[in-house]
Amino acid sequence: MSTTHAITSVSLIGAGNLAWHLGRELHHLGLRIVEVYSPTAEHATALADLTGAAVAGSIEQLSAEAELYIIAVKDDAIPDIIRRFPFPDKAVVHTSGSQPLDLFPSAFTRAGVWYPLQSFRKEKPVHWMGIPVCIEARDEQMADQLESLGRLITGTTYRMSSAQRAWAHLGAVMVSNFSNALYTGADDLLREQGLSFSLLLPLILETAARLRELPPAQAQTGPARRNDEAVIRRHLDMLQGHPEWQEIYSRLTEIIRSRPAAE
Amino acid sequence: MSTTHAITSVSLIGAGNLAWHLGRELHHLGLRIVEVYSPTAEHATALADLTGAAVAGSIEQLSAEAELYIIAVKDDAIPDIIRRFPFPDKAVVHTSGSQPLDLFPSAFTRAGVWYPLQSFRKEKPVHWMGIPVCIEARDEQMADQLESLGRLITGTTYRMSSAQRAWAHLGAVMVSNFSNALYTGADDLLREQGLSFSLLLPLILETAARLRELPPAQAQTGPARRNDEAVIRRHLDMLQGHPEWQEIYSRLTEIIRSRPAAE
Repeated sequence: MSTTHAITSVSLIGAGNLAWHLGRELHHLGLRIVEVYSPTAEHATALADLTGAAVAGSIEQLSAEAELYIIAVKDDAIPDIIRRFPFPDKAVVHTSGSQPLDLFPSAFTRAGVWYPLQSFRKEKPVHWMGIPVCIEARDEQMADQLESLGRLITGTTYRMSSAQRAWAHLGAVMVSNFSNALYTGADDLLREQGLSFSLLLPLILETAARLRELPPAQAQTGPARRNDEAVIRRHLDMLQGHPEWQEIYSRLTEIIRSRPAAE
Repeated sequence: MSTTHAITSVSLIGAGNLAWHLGRELHHLGLRIVEVYSPTAEHATALADLTGAAVAGSIEQLSAEAELYIIAVKDDAIPDIIRRFPFPDKAVVHTSGSQPLDLFPSAFTRAGVWYPLQSFRKEKPVHWMGIPVCIEARDEQMADQLESLGRLITGTTYRMSSAQRAWAHLGAVMVSNFSNALYTGADDLLREQGLSFSLLLPLILETAARLRELPPAQAQTGPARRNDEAVIRRHLDMLQGHPEWQEIYSRLTEIIRSRPAAE
C-alpha cells in the first residue's frame, strides 16, 4: 500500500468560468494558489486577488513552485500553452472533455486530465459536491493524486481513457446542449402563440429530477411512447411552418418508437 | 364585481396517475370527493377509499350531487365518456392538453378544460404548488370557478384557447419527452463504452435548473454555439455507427448555429 502525497499548491492557467470557480474552491479548501496566468490580465488579477495568488506575466514566466499546474482554457488554446509550458517534468493537467491526454508530448511525464463534467458560469455559485471528475494520467501515482484532489472537491471521481472521456463529452452535448436547444425551440414556438415559456418550467425540472429515481428509458412517456398516432399527426401538422422542428419531431418520435420499451 | 361560488364537491372519472393525485389533493384541501368511476374497478375502489368517496358502477349511474365532474382519462377514452355522461348541464371538465374544448357537444353549456401541465406518476408524490393549470371554459363564470380551483391547488393558472393549449402540449412533448429521448440515447451510448449514465446527472439537473435564471436561448453553450468545427466533426465521426443519432446531432447543431445568439 502506498500513500499518495496530497497536492497542497496549484497554479492556474486560465481565469475563465472553470478556473474562476475551481481556484476559489481550492483556496477555500486551504490549498495555496501560487499563481494565476491569463492572456486577459484583468481576469488573472481579479482571480489572483480572490485567492491570494500572484499574477504570472506569461506562461514562460510561471514559477516552478506549484505542485500542480491546471490548464483551464478553451480547447483550441491548449496546444499553444503546452508548447510554451516551461516544466515538462512537473504535474500538469488540462481540464477538457474533448481533448486527449496525448495533447501533452511524451516529454510531459506527469501529464494528466482532470475534467469536471459540469457547466460553469462565473456569475453562478457552484455546488461542487457530486460533480463527476473524469481522471486520466500518464502514471499511477499522478492518477492517485488527481483522484484525491477530485475526492476533496466533489467526492465523485471516475477514471477513464481519452476515448471514453470523448464519449462522456458527446453525451454531455446531447443531454445538455441539445436539450437546451429543444427548450429554446419550445420557447420560440410558444412565444409565437402568445404563451410564456414559464408554462413549461415545472415539467422540465420534473423530467430532469425523475432521473434520480428512474433510468431514462423507463421514464419515457408521451405520444411517441404510447404510439398515439392522432396526436403525433396533429403535432407534425402544426409544425408545417417550422420544417426544422417538424424534422426533429419526426426523427425523435421514430427513435422513441423503435427502441424497445423499458421493462 | 361578481363573486365566484367556490367548488366544494367533485366527482372523478378516471383513477389513473392524474386522477389519483388530484383526488387526494382535493380531499386533503377539504373538498368533498363524491364519487370515483373507473372502468378498472379496483383502481376506483383504491382511490375512493383514500378520499372518502363512493364508487360509481358506471358513467350512467353517476350521482348528480357533485358540483364539478373531472374527466381524467387517456385522450382516446374521453369521447366515449362524454357520449355517456348523463348531465350535460352540469359543470364538467376534461384534463387533456391535446384535446379541444369542442370535444364537448354544444349541449354541454358548462363544459371546460382544466389541464395541469405536469407529468404525474402514481408512485411519486406531487409538489402541486407552481404547476401551471391551463384553463378554458364555455362561459366566464365557469372559467372563474376553474381558475379558483387552480389557484387553490397550484397557485398558477393560465387561461388559453384550445389552439394555444395544443401548442403548450406540443412544447411539453419537446421539452420533456424529447429531452428524455436524448437522455436515453446518451445512456445507451455511454453504456456501450462502459460508462455510467450517472456521470451526466449533475449536468442534466444544472441545465434544467439554469432556466430559473436565464431564458434558454441565453443559456445555450457547447460546440454548436461556439462553432467548434473540430469537435463537431469528431462527434459526427464517433456517431458513424449510430446513424439515427448522427442525424439528430447534425440537425440540432444546425438549428443552434442558425439561430442568432441571444444577447
